[in-house]
Formats: sequence, structure tokens, C-alpha cells
Amino acid sequence: MEPRSQPLEGVTVIDLGQIYQGAYTSFLLAMAGADVIKVEPPGGERLRGGTEKPPTLAFAMLNSNKRAVSLDLKEPRGRHLLVELARRGDVLVENYAPGVLDRLGIGAELLREANPRLIYATATGFGITGPDRDQLAMDHTVQAMSGMISVTGEKGRPPVRAGGAGADILGGVHLYGAIVTALVDRERSGVGATVEISMQESMYFTFASAYTNFHHTGRTPGPVGNGPLGLPMPPYNVYEASDGYLAIICVTDEHWRRLAREMGKPELGEDPRFVDRRSRARHGTEVDALVGAWVRERTREEAWQAARAARVPAAPVRDLAEVMEDPHMHERGALQRVDHRELGPVVLPHSPLRFADAEPLEIQSSPLAGEHNREIYGGWLGLSEAELLELEREGVI
Amino acid sequence: MEPRSQPLEGVTVIDLGQIYQGAYTSFLLAMAGADVIKVEPPGGERLRGGTEKPPTLAFAMLNSNKRAVSLDLKEPRGRHLLVELARRGDVLVENYAPGVLDRLGIGAELLREANPRLIYATATGFGITGPDRDQLAMDHTVQAMSGMISVTGEKGRPPVRAGGAGADILGGVHLYGAIVTALVDRERSGVGATVEISMQESMYFTFASAYTNFHHTGRTPGPVGNGPLGLPMPPYNVYEASDGYLAIICVTDEHWRRLAREMGKPELGEDPRFVDRRSRARHGTEVDALVGAWVRERTREEAWQAARAARVPAAPVRDLAEVMEDPHMHERGALQRVDHRELGPVVLPHSPLRFADAEPLEIQSSPLAGEHNREIYGGWLGLSEAELLELEREGVI
Repeated sequence: MEPRSQPLEGVTVIDLGQIYQGAYTSFLLAMAGADVIKVEPPGGERLRGGTEKPPTLAFAMLNSNKRAVSLDLKEPRGRHLLVELARRGDVLVENYAPGVLDRLGIGAELLREANPRLIYATATGFGITGPDRDQLAMDHTVQAMSGMISVTGEKGRPPVRAGGAGADILGGVHLYGAIVTALVDRERSGVGATVEISMQESMYFTFASAYTNFHHTGRTPGPVGNGPLGLPMPPYNVYEASDGYLAIICVTDEHWRRLAREMGKPELGEDPRFVDRRSRARHGTEVDALVGAWVRERTREEAWQAARAARVPAAPVRDLAEVMEDPHMHERGALQRVDHRELGPVVLPHSPLRFADAEPLEIQSSPLAGEHNREIYGGWLGLSEAELLELEREGVI
Repeated sequence: MEPRSQPLEGVTVIDLGQIYQGAYTSFLLAMAGADVIKVEPPGGERLRGGTEKPPTLAFAMLNSNKRAVSLDLKEPRGRHLLVELARRGDVLVENYAPGVLDRLGIGAELLREANPRLIYATATGFGITGPDRDQLAMDHTVQAMSGMISVTGEKGRPPVRAGGAGADILGGVHLYGAIVTALVDRERSGVGATVEISMQESMYFTFASAYTNFHHTGRTPGPVGNGPLGLPMPPYNVYEASDGYLAIICVTDEHWRRLAREMGKPELGEDPRFVDRRSRARHGTEVDALVGAWVRERTREEAWQAARAARVPAAPVRDLAEVMEDPHMHERGALQRVDHRELGPVVLPHSPLRFADAEPLEIQSSPLAGEHNREIYGGWLGLSEAELLELEREGVI
């Protein structure tokens, strides 16, 4: 069978997405074949870290396979150009604070009037309605408001946030889902849509097991260390090896019996203290002591390979350098060594969305700030060279 | 304007999704208007917690607005029925371990041959190819392998996992995105697709700022407490109030000046030790001491409201009971009080995907195990009552 074309070929995206959340949405669109035009303020968006030096690796990761134009939305002529872009585009993505584009007079209503087929997509921390709408939102504050921080950290110690910007990424991929859903609808109805996600809402299902527990017991957990938010089910922990840490979880009694055999103590598999989940939950400290002692005498790799061979769910606690060099992810093309034109050789991720019938797109270096001004404003919108020079001179583009 | 119909109306989903990941994918599909037929083994999927008592709240959260049939895929006649379902469906979702359906003889190849318009969607921990494909995957092991555990926890102390099942939910929503993308493609090509996501890959962008830092310094972070994975930018922390915790983050110097004024020390805004991000980063301990002292003398609510009024990004560290009762989320309809037919009055979440032009679907209670066997196998597939009785008697359905 011939490889298929990319699933979103022919879809043009006007991308006001910034930093992580909006940029991730449009990255997913670009890697599925959409033509993404990244619109940045002159000087580039914040995540570039300036235009005098190469961009940050995060910027390069999130902006592969996009084109870039510069545009000052504070200028009336800049806003006019945005409307012209939206008139010709299929999707507009933005993750400004709620109401920012409305106040500039270029909100969803006006843009959809200019282009009834436009899908206007907005991602915010807490949504575009409701009493907390104007609460300032970053990943950090959303982690606090969503409950994430309250359940993370060591038992009996202060709460800590989950490392990284998971709320941003969760929000970004939810917005992607909403946009593509509206594209399905538009194929039939011919009409665009306004789609919205809030980071806070995108986090809620993460705690489903804790909500079950709360429903049964009326108690909400504090930080749970390396155990589950729901019912205890030891071994479910992170154990210290001689040179690192290993995560182990026995979901079934058979997992436990296999682990007991691997530890050289097959009798523990039938021991009434440990024979099923309930028994092990009552003897959690002993379970952890037994498993902990076994792991402690081994390197992380030895314990992992032993558990793996025995078909016990386990995994090394890898640091990010190890993840970046993970042979498995490289073999799958999820990570690729790319010669980025500004950064030189770096490891860049492809999209997590895989379409088996199409050849994955080659990863293209992130664009320079304003790199495609002539191509887009001249070639696509039809502005003359004289107009372009004037817009440049006046700092509009 | 008339409210529109739901964007995925007319799309039928054969849903083998279980526990969190696959069930979340099909929940998003159901709430966007697809007709989701949940296929469970007789006795119900694991997350129900048995069929003799009401389901877990997590099950109710994840399975609203679905229909349910029972089906034993270990039985040849069960597999035959699955093929018949797939022949009539648009999408098949599964999150079994890689190769499980292939080994049963009902993998993507066979089902897509039976129905060339079918979108076959699979979510696994590490993907359906590559050396780690058969590594046993749960949220816990994926958190370890993706680097999440390595960066979470207090500085200088052992790593801890992020609370909840974020890897499952991230994987589930990525799979949703892939499915709907394939639906867009099918509207044009008329042909189905195989789409895939891996939980591990879905996590990678969460650590974008840490990868930037690694690129610059060659160092990967260990647990970072409540600070950022990227460049230090105090105040960026969780501070203890008299009755709880408050997250504060100053992204701009203006945020810091506002906070200094609110703390009654406007001079700190201009103090050379704190005047910009770099200076504050060099004096992080002092910044945290100053902000910490201010928060400590207040309740969480007082400090939050003061920061909020001053337009400083801050948020209370809420426990999950508070999140479940959040007035903002209830006002937006993100959370709703529903009289679930088995659980009675509970709080259930709607989908984070919002389509402003359509009236959101009313939340319908999760189905009973096998509730729609007659409707689907009889009404849709056309089996006779005698055949249904026989299949029931033999435990196939």
C-alpha cells in the first residue's frame, strides 16, 4: 500500500500559541501535517529567550515544522493583518489570558464573522467564564488549584509540586483534541466553531482513584509518597538500589508470587500475610522491608532485569539525560538526533501521535523569528514589497 | 443561532478501553457526541470493582454516556462478535498490552480488512514496537521510565512519584487526538487508519524546561521541591500559611514589585538584590524567607486573596475535597451534582473539551455491565432471542 499523505494536510493554522501550552497544541497540528504559521511579537515569543542567540532547546522542541511571522498586535495595522490571516486560515490557536484578544478587538466573534469556517481555539488556566477566570494561571498555580500539589510528596511531610509542566502539556493536548473534533464537524457542517479548554479541568481525571477513595471514606489524601492514591496495594513503591532507584508495583497476586520466587523466597507467595492484596495491604511495612532488602543488594539495572525477566512490573527511576538517550525511544523515532540549524546536533522529539499508514514527517528546525514574513504577508496575503518595508520600518512586523 | 448538534454525532465507537487510559479516551469521545459501546468481559472490567455492588466512583467518572455490552474474547464466538461489531463501527479503542488482540486473531490487520473504514486505536505504555514494547506498563512504571519520578520530591531527598495517574490521562487524551485526526482524514479519503500512542512518549514534553537546562549545563536535575526545573526564578515556591499552603510564582519583575508592595515593603521592588530575575535568583534564600514570613502570618485564604487583589500569581494548595466542591468548576459545569442511578448523589466531571456552539450533553450514569446486550447484539447485529439466550448460557456475553 502507498503511504498516505499526512492526515491534516491542507489545514492552515494561525498560531498565537506561546511557551508550552499553546505551542504544544500547534506542534501536534504541525506534525500531523497542518501548515502552522506561528505569529510572534517582533523580537520573538518569550520562550525563544531573545533573537540575538540561538533559541532555547525547549523552543526548538515545541516549534519544529512551523513557519514564523512577526506581528505586533498592539498596532492597529498589526491587528488588521491578524484578521487577514484568520480570514484565510482554518484554525486560530491562542493561549493568552481570558479576554486579551477581545479587548484588542480581535476576539472570537469578530474573527469568526470574518471567516465563518474558522475554528477559534483558546486554552487558559481556569477557563473563559466563571468566578476564577481572571486568576493568573501558570503551571505552578494550576497544580495548586487542581489538587496535584496536595497529593505529591513524602508522607507526613510538606507537599511538593510534580516536576515539570504537566498541566501545560495536558492542557495543550486537550486543546488539540478539541480543535480536531471541530474539524470533523466542519467537514460535515461547513461551519467553524469556538473551542475551549481549561488547564484546571484537564487535570481532574488524574485523581480518579483518590476520588473513589474519598467517596468511600470521606478522607482526602495528603502527600502519598511513592504509593497509590487509591487503595493500598503493596508492593507499590520506589525502592533504593545500590546505585539508584527502582519502581515496583504488583497489581496481581501472580505478580507477587513471581517476585517472591525471584527474591528466592517462593514461600512468601503463599504466606497468609501476603497471599492477596488485602493481606499485603495489612502488612505493607513488611512487604516493603522484604522487597527493599532485595533491591538494596543489587544495582538498579540488576534488580530491573531480574524483575523484568520474571514478568514483574518494575522500572528504573531514570533521570532526564537517560530518557533523552533512551535506545527504545530512539529506535521508535520518538526521539531523533537532528542537526538543528541554530543549535547544531540535538535530540528532538517527534509527536506522540502516530499514524501508522502515513510516513512520519521529517523533523524540520524551528523557524527564525519573522523568517516567513515575506512568504506569508507577501506571497499569501498579497502585500507589496513597499508595504512590507513600511510595516517593517514601523515595527508592525 | 440554533445550538449545533454534537461534533461527533454519528460516530460509533467499539470501546475495549479499560481502567483509566482507554476509558478516558472513549469518555472524551462519548461527551463529544459519539455513540460509545463499551465492551467488557462478563463480570465487568476491573475498575468496576465487581458487579454485585455499585461501581467505584472512578468507574462512574470515566464511563458516563456510554452503553455497555459483555463479551468474552477468549471464546471463539466472542471474537466473532467483536469482528461483527468492528464491521459496523467507526472506531475501535483498546489499551491492552501490545499484541494481545493480534494473538487472539482479532488485531488491527484483520479488523481493518473486515472494515476498511475502521480506525483502530491502541494505547500502550511503551508502544507497539521497539525493544521495551513488552515492558509491563502501569502509570507507576511509566512515571519512572519517563523521568517524572526523578525530578519530583524535596531537594536532597529521595524522589517521589507525582500523585495520581497523570501518565494514564495524558496517554488517553493523546489517543483521543490521534483518533479524531484520523476521522478528519477519513472524511476526505474514505479510508480508516491505525493510530497509536505510548504513555512514555506522551510525557516527554512535560520536561521541556529541564531539557533546556540540560542542554546548557550538561546537568540533569534531581528532585526540585517546589521550584522550577529550568532556571531559578524566585519567588517560585509553596509557602506555609497558618492553616495550609500557598503557591506563589513571580514570572515578571512587575509581579515581584506588586508582591513587595502587598507585603508592605515596596522598597524590595527596587532593591538591587531583588530588582530582576537574575538578582532574585542569586538571593533565592532571602526571597523565600521574606515571602515565607509574610505568608506564615496569614491564613491561606488571606494570603491568597491579598496576592490575588495585587495581581500576583498565587493559588491555594487545595486538597481533593476542595477541588471537588470548587464553586468555579461547578459554575462552569465542569463538575456537576448528578444523581447516579447506582451511587446516588455524586459529583461527576464533564469533559474538559468545550464546544461553545453546541449545548453540552447531559451527564448520563455509567451503564450496568452488559446492560445493552439485547439492544446491541439483538437490535444492531440482528441476533435472534434464541441466539442471545444461548450466548448468555454459554457465558460468551
